[in-house]
Amino acid sequence: MSAPAGSISFVLPAGGAGRRLGGRCKPFLEVAGRPLVLHTLERVRAVAGLAEVVVVLPAAACAELSARHGAALASAGVSRVVPGGTSRQTSVARGLESLQEPCELVAVHDAVRPFASAALAERLAAAAREHGGALPVLPVTDTLKRGEELPDGSVRILGTRPREGLYAVQTPQIFRRDLLARAYAQAADLGASVTDDAALVEAAGGRVVGLPGEPWNLKITTPADPPLAAALLDAGLV
Amino acid sequence: MSAPAGSISFVLPAGGAGRRLGGRCKPFLEVAGRPLVLHTLERVRAVAGLAEVVVVLPAAACAELSARHGAALASAGVSRVVPGGTSRQTSVARGLESLQEPCELVAVHDAVRPFASAALAERLAAAAREHGGALPVLPVTDTLKRGEELPDGSVRILGTRPREGLYAVQTPQIFRRDLLARAYAQAADLGASVTDDAALVEAAGGRVVGLPGEPWNLKITTPADPPLAAALLDAGLV
Repeated sequence: MSAPAGSISFVLPAGGAGRRLGGRCKPFLEVAGRPLVLHTLERVRAVAGLAEVVVVLPAAACAELSARHGAALASAGVSRVVPGGTSRQTSVARGLESLQEPCELVAVHDAVRPFASAALAERLAAAAREHGGALPVLPVTDTLKRGEELPDGSVRILGTRPREGLYAVQTPQIFRRDLLARAYAQAADLGASVTDDAALVEAAGGRVVGLPGEPWNLKITTPADPPLAAALLDAGLV
Repeated sequence: MSAPAGSISFVLPAGGAGRRLGGRCKPFLEVAGRPLVLHTLERVRAVAGLAEVVVVLPAAACAELSARHGAALASAGVSRVVPGGTSRQTSVARGLESLQEPCELVAVHDAVRPFASAALAERLAAAAREHGGALPVLPVTDTLKRGEELPDGSVRILGTRPREGLYAVQTPQIFRRDLLARAYAQAADLGASVTDDAALVEAAGGRVVGLPGEPWNLKITTPADPPLAAALLDAGLV
């Protein structure tokens, strides 16, 4: 079965235990009256050429979460929910294995990045078709220090780290499916573990290009983030 | 004249030409109907032990801006407006030279960080009295890439940069006045130029401690930031 040109499937890893947000499963935190992941899916389902969407939930909570939210996820365009592994990498691998529709491209996208626009995903998809992989980046504008956290919560400052040439990475990260599958297979063979999918593809020799990210494309990580997301929605900025 | 214990003066550098915000002088961008710098000053003037507040404006625009905004700045607690130099460092140096009141501590604070709380400044002041210098930091949570910007605006990704032990720095940065003055004098002697005041103090052998920063303590830098600041105000988050 050959994949239609530009067809794209989304794998949405939904993170681990969410310790930083009080142990609740972050994708189902309510923001403006709706679970976060439904905000994310609203934008994902508008992407041109969409083949299928898979959500990967923490294995321990998957059955319960699927029972509670399965219908809402299905009507938001999710083809299937799969239980994840012990790391982001194994979770994404399980999502990849579960894909059933032919597709030329795969997007890996944090379930808790509610505001990445469909237009951003489409620009990245075009670049991934040309280069192999593409991800959204923003130049680092903060001054960076190296430091060491002390038991009292303060930080011993060890020095200044130049920020020139440094970029903060967002998702979706989009790749040619064959290239991403090969990168994951190699990582499994080597027992390699990395923090993002682009790094796996780089390690497998693939080429990844950065495109300008979106300022509102925040990842909901700390307790300050859900109220920020609600404020952005209220202000009509996203 | 000996400085009262805990007395603190603020130097607020107001940045350069503000190219990234269309050439307007950023501290006077209106957010929620008021110039940014007045939002900043509202919090600064609530800091315990405040001795005086100096705003350093771009030299080329200083006369005009002082004429237009001088009265508003004075009623917001500003003791004096001084013209800056060609770099942040020389601007801060001119602000330091202009201080007239005795003070034990000096805070250097971006005029365009409207939401740093007085409580944060007071925690930093206490730590600076103990250690010499203190600054607010947040651990870097984004994946970082090294990259090279290409002529078409895309970024060639060169690799992944570990984020462990890296902290993003905010202001106010607060120091014992004698230590900061010595650091600036040494930097002038050496012709050294650095991106932040803590780095100058570190270079002069001073000790600087990081304390947890505030998530809303954003620096208004890009066109996306003023609407974000307005949304935070509207939502009552700051």
